[in-house]
Amino acid sequence: MPTLSQRISQLHASPIREILAVIQQPGMISFAGGLPSADSFPAFDMAQVPATLWQYGASEGESALREAICIELRQLNFDCTPEQVLVLSGSQQGIDLVAKLMIDTGTAVALESPTYLAALQVFRLFGARFVTLDIARPRPALDQASLCYVVPTFQNPTGGCYTHEQRKQLAQACEASGTVLFEDDPYRDLVYDACDRQPVATYLQSGSFIYQGSFSKTLAPGLRLGYLLASKDLVPYLTRLKQAADLHSNRLSQHLVLQALRDPARGERLQRLQQHYRAKRDAFTDALQWHMRGLANWQTPPGGLFFWLTLAERIDTQALLQQAIAQGVAFMPGEPFFHDGTSGLSHLRLNFSHASITDMDKGLRILRRLCEKALGIRQAG
Amino acid sequence: MPTLSQRISQLHASPIREILAVIQQPGMISFAGGLPSADSFPAFDMAQVPATLWQYGASEGESALREAICIELRQLNFDCTPEQVLVLSGSQQGIDLVAKLMIDTGTAVALESPTYLAALQVFRLFGARFVTLDIARPRPALDQASLCYVVPTFQNPTGGCYTHEQRKQLAQACEASGTVLFEDDPYRDLVYDACDRQPVATYLQSGSFIYQGSFSKTLAPGLRLGYLLASKDLVPYLTRLKQAADLHSNRLSQHLVLQALRDPARGERLQRLQQHYRAKRDAFTDALQWHMRGLANWQTPPGGLFFWLTLAERIDTQALLQQAIAQGVAFMPGEPFFHDGTSGLSHLRLNFSHASITDMDKGLRILRRLCEKALGIRQAG
Repeated sequence: MPTLSQRISQLHASPIREILAVIQQPGMISFAGGLPSADSFPAFDMAQVPATLWQYGASEGESALREAICIELRQLNFDCTPEQVLVLSGSQQGIDLVAKLMIDTGTAVALESPTYLAALQVFRLFGARFVTLDIARPRPALDQASLCYVVPTFQNPTGGCYTHEQRKQLAQACEASGTVLFEDDPYRDLVYDACDRQPVATYLQSGSFIYQGSFSKTLAPGLRLGYLLASKDLVPYLTRLKQAADLHSNRLSQHLVLQALRDPARGERLQRLQQHYRAKRDAFTDALQWHMRGLANWQTPPGGLFFWLTLAERIDTQALLQQAIAQGVAFMPGEPFFHDGTSGLSHLRLNFSHASITDMDKGLRILRRLCEKALGIRQAG
Repeated sequence: MPTLSQRISQLHASPIREILAVIQQPGMISFAGGLPSADSFPAFDMAQVPATLWQYGASEGESALREAICIELRQLNFDCTPEQVLVLSGSQQGIDLVAKLMIDTGTAVALESPTYLAALQVFRLFGARFVTLDIARPRPALDQASLCYVVPTFQNPTGGCYTHEQRKQLAQACEASGTVLFEDDPYRDLVYDACDRQPVATYLQSGSFIYQGSFSKTLAPGLRLGYLLASKDLVPYLTRLKQAADLHSNRLSQHLVLQALRDPARGERLQRLQQHYRAKRDAFTDALQWHMRGLANWQTPPGGLFFWLTLAERIDTQALLQQAIAQGVAFMPGEPFFHDGTSGLSHLRLNFSHASITDMDKGLRILRRLCEKALGIRQAG
């Protein structure tokens, strides 16, 4: 074996990736990934693709798309220009770019525990040290950290949503401690109940920030397209990092996304999508009530794609996953979402958007039996 | 300004990126980028796109595409399986992944001087120390380096092609010194004269390697699709790094590339492409003979997309570029291709595939006058 870089010792197999392979098996009921419902994808118009798109393009993204994104961000109260918008090859790329920009071995990153596991994976690869952010009292963690990573709206994995006060307080604390805010906002349009969704970064007066969004959840993940908006001081660095990462993003996807953003029926489509997912969430709530009451606690998420279950007793959900897969059901164990890896033994993240309503019931029935058995074995042992 | 990572001090604006912006100006004659001729792009069939492609896909790439690539690589005498093939979001991404895999601050990388500037950019970002590889006598450099980066076939920027003996000797030297071979082969199908194109990595007995290819030059760069083949020891790490970088590559592009690989008319199309570029190369040779004889020396490249000119006297080609752009002509100065940055003052890299034959003559006339002026000023000063 050749000598690899030191960071490779911090490179772990992603549970998401392993589970993506599993859920492609025929007949598997998946509560695992954040997969949009296959019937939610728009009918893209492939007839009008200009041949100029086959040539190399700009690293920052297509001008017209950057402008369209900028207009939407202004409607969210961002004071921004198209030059601050970078098109990404999916928002996972934004995490990679920000890690390159900010993180050396030992750099302190403040984040909630639990938080998005693929962000933990990338930050860890670049040598980050994690500081747990308490959103009710953010200042102590921020004072120690140069970067703060948050998913304020329909948090992954908990589904929670910061209040107005928490958002303002977090922005103020970032500014007071000179911490760069990295706000990841892929789920904001998947809203089912009234709640505050104002981006935290819009409350910054002059602090440095990266705000990122995704087209995977409202259009289609296969397009691999997202964007980031950064404070002006960071834009030149992020642009160069983007260029070094993949020259530029897929131009055909950029064209299709721009068409979708300009589609007059877009608002209506989004409403239908919200109704569709709200109905699925509600059906999942019913199925959870039926199967899991007494075994686990949960909050109904006001948006996003996930339920976060806390089991009544502490069991190893990684072991539970192996048993569930053997019976045709996949879910995400809680453990990889916790940066210290140990606090997550009694949690399950369940996606409600992908499975059919029939499969929800069938899959949760299997999970219930496995949980009962695990708890029983534990009690007996 | 917040505290950025230490690597950002090694992050420089890419000359390619800056020039891509310039050549989009209307009327600009570009000898700068490696842009394929716009009339060379195939007519992609957009009518048969399966809707399943809009969902998340596998990090490694679509199975059918990996198999098709593997079959082609076996025809090149690689003893490989589809599991060793990873689909990339363009071969620039391969450079990023290999840098993450291998390079810490101070890691020695052996490479030719000059070599591909975007590889230098990425390796530098990750803290590489460069050791100049003399292809006639590779062992001394390889003994010092853990990674060796080469473009053996139609090298960028020189257009040169390693001989059979050089290829075998390089493979043997990599193995003897335990150096990982990173072979970048984007131009191999753009061949105009007989020459050895056998991948160096096929001569390895058991050494670790990454061999990568691109669909940008023979299909379309806007698709942003390439691939790598790695020795079995490196595949799991590269797969995880790919997942962390962008989850997976664009599935629509993967579908279109697979269709193109399966197209029975593909061989014929490639032959036409070669004829087209050979004719352009020959026309460029004529124009160079007419305008630049006495001012510069060059070898006619047997393949690829570039002429590499060595000026008769040492002038600052970065300054020359600014004057040329002002007169509507873009080219790549030699300097950024040299890792020490200083040996390249008297070189120009000229692309012959993008400009029309009329524009070749017009552009080279302008370059000639500027070179004459620069040499005259220098002689007078």
